[in-house]
Amino acid sequence: MEVEAKFPYVEGVEEKVREIAELIIEKYEHDVYFAHPCRDFAQTDEAIRIRRDVEGITLTYKGPKVDAETKSREEIKLKVEDFESARRILEKLGFKPVAEVKKFRKIYGFGDAIICVDKVEDLGKFVEIEIEAENLDVKEKVFHIAEQLGYSREDSIRESYLELILQKKSRKDSSKNGQKS
Amino acid sequence: MEVEAKFPYVEGVEEKVREIAELIIEKYEHDVYFAHPCRDFAQTDEAIRIRRDVEGITLTYKGPKVDAETKSREEIKLKVEDFESARRILEKLGFKPVAEVKKFRKIYGFGDAIICVDKVEDLGKFVEIEIEAENLDVKEKVFHIAEQLGYSREDSIRESYLELILQKKSRKDSSKNGQKS
Repeated sequence: MEVEAKFPYVEGVEEKVREIAELIIEKYEHDVYFAHPCRDFAQTDEAIRIRRDVEGITLTYKGPKVDAETKSREEIKLKVEDFESARRILEKLGFKPVAEVKKFRKIYGFGDAIICVDKVEDLGKFVEIEIEAENLDVKEKVFHIAEQLGYSREDSIRESYLELILQKKSRKDSSKNGQKS
Repeated sequence: MEVEAKFPYVEGVEEKVREIAELIIEKYEHDVYFAHPCRDFAQTDEAIRIRRDVEGITLTYKGPKVDAETKSREEIKLKVEDFESARRILEKLGFKPVAEVKKFRKIYGFGDAIICVDKVEDLGKFVEIEIEAENLDVKEKVFHIAEQLGYSREDSIRESYLELILQKKSRKDSSKNGQKS
């Protein structure tokens, strides 16, 4: 599973990241998320997406979040050969594209953890700290790294980028409807 | 789409295949088919499967058959990196494994057509003739090749191996139930 916490970007944090961690890769990630044909992923807290980046195309299933303080969850990743065929198969099976997340991501390595500094289109900048592990035991390690960067555990944002994008969209839609009425 | 016809194997047919076509590859194919979480594929005449063979792992969607005489249908193929992750993602999304098809396949090339001589576990031997094309226009070409191998169009078997396996299984189950009552 991915034991993972997200924090709002604050001025100067990336300098702190650079002090303790080493840049592994900078890349642009383009994710398309899909709705399930007969299951409400907003209710079940799951997600399925296709990611396209410089390393290739990946189909990812995300299970429900398993922790109250972090966005830790099971993730199953599958490298696939071709974005279009993956999209067409999902759509033929009744999955419908619901949102896209586009971000510029800098991934820093720090021991067995990675620290991502993300600039997300329409959402702004964030810092994610992630350790791939068998269980939640490493959560305190994640919060300890966060502390070194100046964050407290209360700063943790549990929502995924998908959820933040959908929230923003729904606020926009309701304010539009408000203007209409 | 795959414009494709299947025929029962008859004694001596492989010699005829070898006279007109050239062996491309011999391989063992292991397919796992899945049921959709909320759509009856037996009704919609669709299928989703993961194939494992010497060339790798392929996720394939098959659309409904589009022709009364052949098993021609749309197929979308996606090479994936890993069988287990593909299976786990499908199962997490609610797809359930329903049947396996295991066969030893010899693929012969004949112009833009391929001729497969298949030995299918639990079903026996068959010959499939297939042309990948934009539409059904090449159907007569498929039947012409079949004729060269001694088949008439009435010999064409429209059922997929999956359907034949499921039919056999259901006959077995009902005879078992018959014995019980």
